[in-house]
Amino acid sequence: MFSRQVKQFLKRSSSTLWPYLQRNYGAPSRQAKVTNDFVSSLKSIVGDKNVSTADAVREQHGHDESHHEIGLPDVVVFAESVQHVSEVSKLCNDNVVSLIPFGSGTGLEGGVNALEGGVCLDVTKMDEIIEVNAEDFDCTVRPGVMRIGLNNYLRDTGLFFPIDPGADASVCGMCATSASGTNAVRYGTMRENVLNLEVVLPDGRVIDTAGKGRRTKKTSAGYNLTNLFVGSEGTLGTITKATVRLYGVPEKTISAVCHFNSVQEAVDTVVQVLQCGIPMAKLEFLDDVAIEAFNKFSKFDMTVAQSLFLEFHGPALGLEDQFNTVKELIDMNNGFGLKTAIEADERNKLWKARHEMVWACCSLIPGSKPYSTDVCVPISHLPDVIVKTKEMIKEANVIGPIVGHVGDGNFHVFFPVDHADTETFKKVYDISHRMALLAMDRNGTCTGEHGIGMGKRDLLIRELGEEGVEAMRQVKKTFDPNGIMNPGKVFC
Amino acid sequence: MFSRQVKQFLKRSSSTLWPYLQRNYGAPSRQAKVTNDFVSSLKSIVGDKNVSTADAVREQHGHDESHHEIGLPDVVVFAESVQHVSEVSKLCNDNVVSLIPFGSGTGLEGGVNALEGGVCLDVTKMDEIIEVNAEDFDCTVRPGVMRIGLNNYLRDTGLFFPIDPGADASVCGMCATSASGTNAVRYGTMRENVLNLEVVLPDGRVIDTAGKGRRTKKTSAGYNLTNLFVGSEGTLGTITKATVRLYGVPEKTISAVCHFNSVQEAVDTVVQVLQCGIPMAKLEFLDDVAIEAFNKFSKFDMTVAQSLFLEFHGPALGLEDQFNTVKELIDMNNGFGLKTAIEADERNKLWKARHEMVWACCSLIPGSKPYSTDVCVPISHLPDVIVKTKEMIKEANVIGPIVGHVGDGNFHVFFPVDHADTETFKKVYDISHRMALLAMDRNGTCTGEHGIGMGKRDLLIRELGEEGVEAMRQVKKTFDPNGIMNPGKVFC
Repeated sequence: MFSRQVKQFLKRSSSTLWPYLQRNYGAPSRQAKVTNDFVSSLKSIVGDKNVSTADAVREQHGHDESHHEIGLPDVVVFAESVQHVSEVSKLCNDNVVSLIPFGSGTGLEGGVNALEGGVCLDVTKMDEIIEVNAEDFDCTVRPGVMRIGLNNYLRDTGLFFPIDPGADASVCGMCATSASGTNAVRYGTMRENVLNLEVVLPDGRVIDTAGKGRRTKKTSAGYNLTNLFVGSEGTLGTITKATVRLYGVPEKTISAVCHFNSVQEAVDTVVQVLQCGIPMAKLEFLDDVAIEAFNKFSKFDMTVAQSLFLEFHGPALGLEDQFNTVKELIDMNNGFGLKTAIEADERNKLWKARHEMVWACCSLIPGSKPYSTDVCVPISHLPDVIVKTKEMIKEANVIGPIVGHVGDGNFHVFFPVDHADTETFKKVYDISHRMALLAMDRNGTCTGEHGIGMGKRDLLIRELGEEGVEAMRQVKKTFDPNGIMNPGKVFC
Repeated sequence: MFSRQVKQFLKRSSSTLWPYLQRNYGAPSRQAKVTNDFVSSLKSIVGDKNVSTADAVREQHGHDESHHEIGLPDVVVFAESVQHVSEVSKLCNDNVVSLIPFGSGTGLEGGVNALEGGVCLDVTKMDEIIEVNAEDFDCTVRPGVMRIGLNNYLRDTGLFFPIDPGADASVCGMCATSASGTNAVRYGTMRENVLNLEVVLPDGRVIDTAGKGRRTKKTSAGYNLTNLFVGSEGTLGTITKATVRLYGVPEKTISAVCHFNSVQEAVDTVVQVLQCGIPMAKLEFLDDVAIEAFNKFSKFDMTVAQSLFLEFHGPALGLEDQFNTVKELIDMNNGFGLKTAIEADERNKLWKARHEMVWACCSLIPGSKPYSTDVCVPISHLPDVIVKTKEMIKEANVIGPIVGHVGDGNFHVFFPVDHADTETFKKVYDISHRMALLAMDRNGTCTGEHGIGMGKRDLLIRELGEEGVEAMRQVKKTFDPNGIMNPGKVFC
């Protein structure tokens, strides 16, 4: 999946990746300890080979791709069936032991880090693509099915699963975190694309959120449990099956890149493109700093300026018209250097490099790890918030490339941070926090797509108010009265 | 809003409309009675003028537009502010008195019928359009704002609110019932179009489901409370404000009608249109019986056959290409009599008549009321389910025009039923029930858009399973422990 550069990067920085191993989290755990007897009980459910207390396995399962400190589970369990998940859940619940569902580990807010030890439940061995209903534009998968693997499997059907957060995440993990990414401006986020979920509740009950076997495009049958579990970050139950929407591979695709002298002009173009109702497939912003990293890491030679990366999907004929309309808008806003990529090879190279931006940014500081921010605002506030963010970055004298799904009003700063450099780390944390407050002040949210995880629990209270978070806590408590599911995430 | 024919119809049939007044519902109420003291307390909150126990007012608020038996509230309260809603809710909760939020009363599953008496809370006096953010494609409204009124208000902005269930429902009521309708195939249902809700919980707490003032296109901040309340049918709280998405009025619109000799050919065309990725705005099926009613009621002279009503929205140039592709598919499936309507007057006439279909169907049997079914299946099962439904109708020897949003796999039979004719009523109930079972057997749902209300509570259990419904009951209980919110709806 990753390019040679990314692989090299990961190898190079592995020694400095997790310096905070086993750091104390302060408050003593409410959870019971994992005893030898408990581990034996786990083995009797899933078999000896599917239980590990080895340091390497625990470490591998104690973190995602974020800057957050590792949190080691006491034991890692590999489930091979829904029955396994159900029995392990019940065992944990009966013994009040923490349970953390684990998919691809590609999250960006420490969603899988075990803050109170306990059981990490790795569900990636359940990797069956159960069915593809090409005529109905849907498919049903188990939690070990990865996004890219699914799309490879679908190739001959003429369909694809469009949600693309960059990383090769598991589809069910993407449900758990309500992922989105570059294609959301056209195809929506996971929230709009999940038709049904099978979920194992903490007490071992198995439910189908929309009813067993249902896969209709719409339903009004009772509460929308599907969307309650989408984005619940493993705090309500374990997702063991997902039915998601698919889309026809577009007849024609045009990718394009153009540049601007100011953030305002770039974002004005985006607003106008949306106002014209052009159904853009991708509408991405990269600032000058990001383009520098992009060029360096992915061997491009792009003009270093505020830039838009665009993609059009559609039938061949109408697409040219769309492209020409957008071209006019770019010209109107003094955009320059418009270049298209129509051939698949060229397009793939461009978007692969775009998806590797997080590593490209880290390449700017040797030994650094990514610290990603993730605000989202109504698009009218976007230029202001991006400009103010750039000012904060400049003032703090840190490196902060900006990359964003601006069609949705969502953008990130991918700060490369060497964790040993506590001064910079503190500065970056400070900017990240101030960006969230700024976004909230502009009708926005502290997280457009990465979730709350362990990093934004205080911000959630600020964003929702105590009443809103209390309503969420009530939901949590009703499904997970013992608080075993992924403790310390979403809620303080 | 309604044509002269509809008004005449409503006038004509008013005497027979609600023959089941005050019929006993069997199980004794768990709710406390509404005493004179309680009514005085209500008056002290909202003022004397906003409390009514008059028979006419109670009758008007005791039903929606469905075939379901009337359920009279003991008292009707008109709220003029969120404070009113909050205080009334708290009073009802403290006294364990039923509370039924009431918007436009245009539902089709008895959602507002007061099954255990109590307080009907009419929120239509709160009719402010709080803000329209044209640049961000969103607006925020109070619960008295109706769909058509909102679109009239938006006319000068170049934007519109596309969700169109036919009736002139309130936007917040559409949130409560998760409405959709003719445009859902392109623009989605309410589930995809609500950005934020202000909800008053039964105990009087006021929450903003996505946080106060937030109106981002996407968010991952905590649980998706917004979509928990969308479609909750007034059983969890009262919606007092909604922020919804708007869309640009398309540069060009083409409406078209064509006919087929078989249901299979009509639906095959629909499947192929969707497979080609044509972004249809409307994709409606009317069977031969429906066309007969349509012609008779709305003075059209359309070919009596299985028919598709289509609409294309988009930029002028590409739209012709889309239309031509669809035309080819219609030809391939032996469709005939394709006619277009491009001028606004002509289009409006066509769709107004389509929306009046429920009354057109009733015009087939004098003194009848509509009994609407509402199944939804994956589109590959649609021809089979429609054909089998037609067989059931024929076998039972009743009149049952079929009208459907087939682009979503959703269709209705609008049975015109004279409630005095108990034999026919029983037959129709039987077909409706069998249709639901048939749909469920084909990965479908018993309700695509009308909701569970009072009519499909047993079917919900069949569809979700006891475990699924129990999970929903848990959610209900956590927000409404006294069970005061719209009792007898959704759950048995």
